Amino acid sequence: MPYTLHEIAEVIGAGLRGDRDCMITGIATLHNAREGDLSFLANPRYRKYLNSTRASAVILSAASADECSVNALISEDPYSAYARAAAFLYPSEKTAAEIHPSAVLSEGACVPDSAFVGANVFIGEDVEIGERAYIGPGCVVEKGACIGADTRLVANITVCRGVSIGMRNLIHPGVVLGADGFGIANDGGRWLKIPQIGTVRIGNDVELGANTTIDRGALEDTVIEDGVKIDNQVQIGHNTRVGEHSAIAGCCAIAGSVSIGRRCMIGGLSAIAGHLEIADDVVITGMSGISNSIKNPGMYSSGLDVTETRIWRKNNARFKQLDELARKILRLEKKLDK
Amino acid sequence: MPYTLHEIAEVIGAGLRGDRDCMITGIATLHNAREGDLSFLANPRYRKYLNSTRASAVILSAASADECSVNALISEDPYSAYARAAAFLYPSEKTAAEIHPSAVLSEGACVPDSAFVGANVFIGEDVEIGERAYIGPGCVVEKGACIGADTRLVANITVCRGVSIGMRNLIHPGVVLGADGFGIANDGGRWLKIPQIGTVRIGNDVELGANTTIDRGALEDTVIEDGVKIDNQVQIGHNTRVGEHSAIAGCCAIAGSVSIGRRCMIGGLSAIAGHLEIADDVVITGMSGISNSIKNPGMYSSGLDVTETRIWRKNNARFKQLDELARKILRLEKKLDK
Amino acid sequence: MPYTLHEIAEVIGAGLRGDRDCMITGIATLHNAREGDLSFLANPRYRKYLNSTRASAVILSAASADECSVNALISEDPYSAYARAAAFLYPSEKTAAEIHPSAVLSEGACVPDSAFVGANVFIGEDVEIGERAYIGPGCVVEKGACIGADTRLVANITVCRGVSIGMRNLIHPGVVLGADGFGIANDGGRWLKIPQIGTVRIGNDVELGANTTIDRGALEDTVIEDGVKIDNQVQIGHNTRVGEHSAIAGCCAIAGSVSIGRRCMIGGLSAIAGHLEIADDVVITGMSGISNSIKNPGMYSSGLDVTETRIWRKNNARFKQLDELARKILRLEKKLDK
Repeated sequence: MPYTLHEIAEVIGAGLRGDRDCMITGIATLHNAREGDLSFLANPRYRKYLNSTRASAVILSAASADECSVNALISEDPYSAYARAAAFLYPSEKTAAEIHPSAVLSEGACVPDSAFVGANVFIGEDVEIGERAYIGPGCVVEKGACIGADTRLVANITVCRGVSIGMRNLIHPGVVLGADGFGIANDGGRWLKIPQIGTVRIGNDVELGANTTIDRGALEDTVIEDGVKIDNQVQIGHNTRVGEHSAIAGCCAIAGSVSIGRRCMIGGLSAIAGHLEIADDVVITGMSGISNSIKNPGMYSSGLDVTETRIWRKNNARFKQLDELARKILRLEKKLDK
Repeated sequence: MPYTLHEIAEVIGAGLRGDRDCMITGIATLHNAREGDLSFLANPRYRKYLNSTRASAVILSAASADECSVNALISEDPYSAYARAAAFLYPSEKTAAEIHPSAVLSEGACVPDSAFVGANVFIGEDVEIGERAYIGPGCVVEKGACIGADTRLVANITVCRGVSIGMRNLIHPGVVLGADGFGIANDGGRWLKIPQIGTVRIGNDVELGANTTIDRGALEDTVIEDGVKIDNQVQIGHNTRVGEHSAIAGCCAIAGSVSIGRRCMIGGLSAIAGHLEIADDVVITGMSGISNSIKNPGMYSSGLDVTETRIWRKNNARFKQLDELARKILRLEKKLDK
Repeated sequence: MPYTLHEIAEVIGAGLRGDRDCMITGIATLHNAREGDLSFLANPRYRKYLNSTRASAVILSAASADECSVNALISEDPYSAYARAAAFLYPSEKTAAEIHPSAVLSEGACVPDSAFVGANVFIGEDVEIGERAYIGPGCVVEKGACIGADTRLVANITVCRGVSIGMRNLIHPGVVLGADGFGIANDGGRWLKIPQIGTVRIGNDVELGANTTIDRGALEDTVIEDGVKIDNQVQIGHNTRVGEHSAIAGCCAIAGSVSIGRRCMIGGLSAIAGHLEIADDVVITGMSGISNSIKNPGMYSSGLDVTETRIWRKNNARFKQLDELARKILRLEKKLDK
């Protein structure tokens, strides 16, 4: 930084309307932008700020460009274009290689000179760390685990024994990979524990949000394929597979032995019951419950939106009579048909 | 401890009926209290224990006082009065200032003599710790973060780079502040990461429950205002603002760019979708889903209460026909009107 | 390993049909088994793989045995039998006793020679660790806590002051035991904190999943009884009691002062409101909301299953009219009766 608008247009592949030499020093929302800022219009909710923005330039669609009184970067997909511009203007910081003296490396652990191992890290026996990997402060990597090149474990993460993580992953604090799956068998009113002898395998270019947990498999492995993006506090049960480039928003509960297809999008606080199959290209809106397999691409929902409590109370009570009410309707129809 | 009933009455601002010199040595529930205990009646569920309590005194409302056969402390708000009494009788322990030899302090970190820094803590470059702050064992405070005076980070907490925390906060173990928000843009079936260049700013007198996560902003900051109380395992998305003195119960999923007003109360396991505005003084009951902005104060709900599964199964199936059933009713009404 | 089929049959108490000297070298699913593997058929979903399995033997019910073309171990409860076989074939690894030099042990902490204390562990004052207990890397055990014999804290776990944990527990990474309960009293629009003077008491043979949190009691203790199994990311509020041998699946939100009976099973992402009582032997299916006490054993549900979003949208809107629709039906019935 700074860059000219014209340099940015080239990097992000956008058309340029206005002053190509305008200097850009940052990115901001339409509402808060100041001189020198690049902004963007992707969500129509924020169109109301387009007129009054103080941004020096705005990324937007051709359809919106006419309403824009400042310099414009025109893109078919302004949100992706904003992502590219932000990545260009705010490149991720490089950390110098280092093994902090307080880190504990066990016998047989393999840590290349290009890696970073932070304070109070524990690396178990026979762990393999990839080139330029970053193992942040307080992380625990148990024996036999494998962390790919350029993967970043931010801090206070637990990688259990034998878990395998690919390249260029970004894993946020508090994540737990490879804890035992919830494998228990009822034996006359008591629970027998089932050893969880599978592991977790995570592909390349995966991002895992803070405090997300992914359990190791009971017999087979739990698998997160390439390019998957998972938000905070998501739970993925044992033996589950999440297909390439799927995205799972915060606080979802995915049970065990689920197979989620490619390019799925799952809204926050949704649940998927065990042993189900979700097809490729399925979109599930937030707070949905899936208790049957979904065989066709498309958008699915089940959450209920709030109403005032005094109204809800009556509707909640009536829900308990819903089948009975439906039968009444059918009886009425029959009566009237006579 | 012990204190006379009369001393306690004065501290909590309650009226006293009975023996003013009665000695109080602890607090307990009506059901479990023994001689020397102070108890309270706030939730009508527990009124049944009032007759038989062995407490030496009970905090209750004037309306309930006549039913009380032991000493009474009379308050308009017995629950607040109990809170004051408990805070008086069980003051929070003071920890002596110390920097544990196993703690790692990076260059430029500023830790006053009055602070406590526990075992295996990592403090990054240029971190500022306030007077009398407590950074418990295993915490990671990344570079540039700022922790206010008298704030207590209990243990194993991660504060990411540049996060700012006010004074007198109480932050429970496993909390992650300032991990990247879930900012991704779909680019032809793959996800582009959007750099999260905002941070998290937390006001004064905030409490955050165990394993709660608050993401850093994409462009602007995520903000928790003064006096907010957040329970365990709550997720707050990027750019979201929680207004003063709001309370959020456990396991809520608050998406990104949400604005929650002042003095709101949100029940457990509720979800708020992205980009919504919730007015001041809104109460949301547990397990509710909010997918539209709420413009007026009041109480809102959407969770469904359980029934026996065999009944629920039919109602769940009928729900899928609900619009169709409603149309049938309207047709029947028309037919009958003729 | 390996063992003969006949040895395994004896250990798990199953009948044997086929080659009693067949050598078993591992366990696998019907679908993925190879020569030498023992497999099992418990979930009817996987019956389709029985014909084509390459397993050397299969654990199954007498009713299914005729369809099995390989060696069979016949059991009334194939899933429990599989659990026993897996525990026999994959015994849990023993860790040699050790106190890692980077661990910090405070004054008065009592750690027997048979225990394992990993890297970067913090043990507070007067903590008592039982025989053969395992305190994994990064754990924090605050003062006065007590960890029973043969209990395993995997890694990065926080046990707050005074918490008591029984014998043979298995506690997964990121668990927080004994953080303050969410005790706040509203005092004219601001929140007063209520000191949480109870603790957490956990029985024997309990398993707690990754990032689960159990709060300390306000006045009385939060209690998890013997044999309880709790999955990942479950929240248990203050003063709550979970009865013996109950199982709670992932992401459940159990509020405070709840009493859950014995042998209950609670499906994932369910919520139980505060101060409720759940009887023994209650089964709650996933994503259910419980806002009233459940007095009788049985199976209860309330989650809604997804439909396509375009259909759901109409039904969601109609739900807001449900009581009104019900009244219309009753009026129609009256009219027609005349």
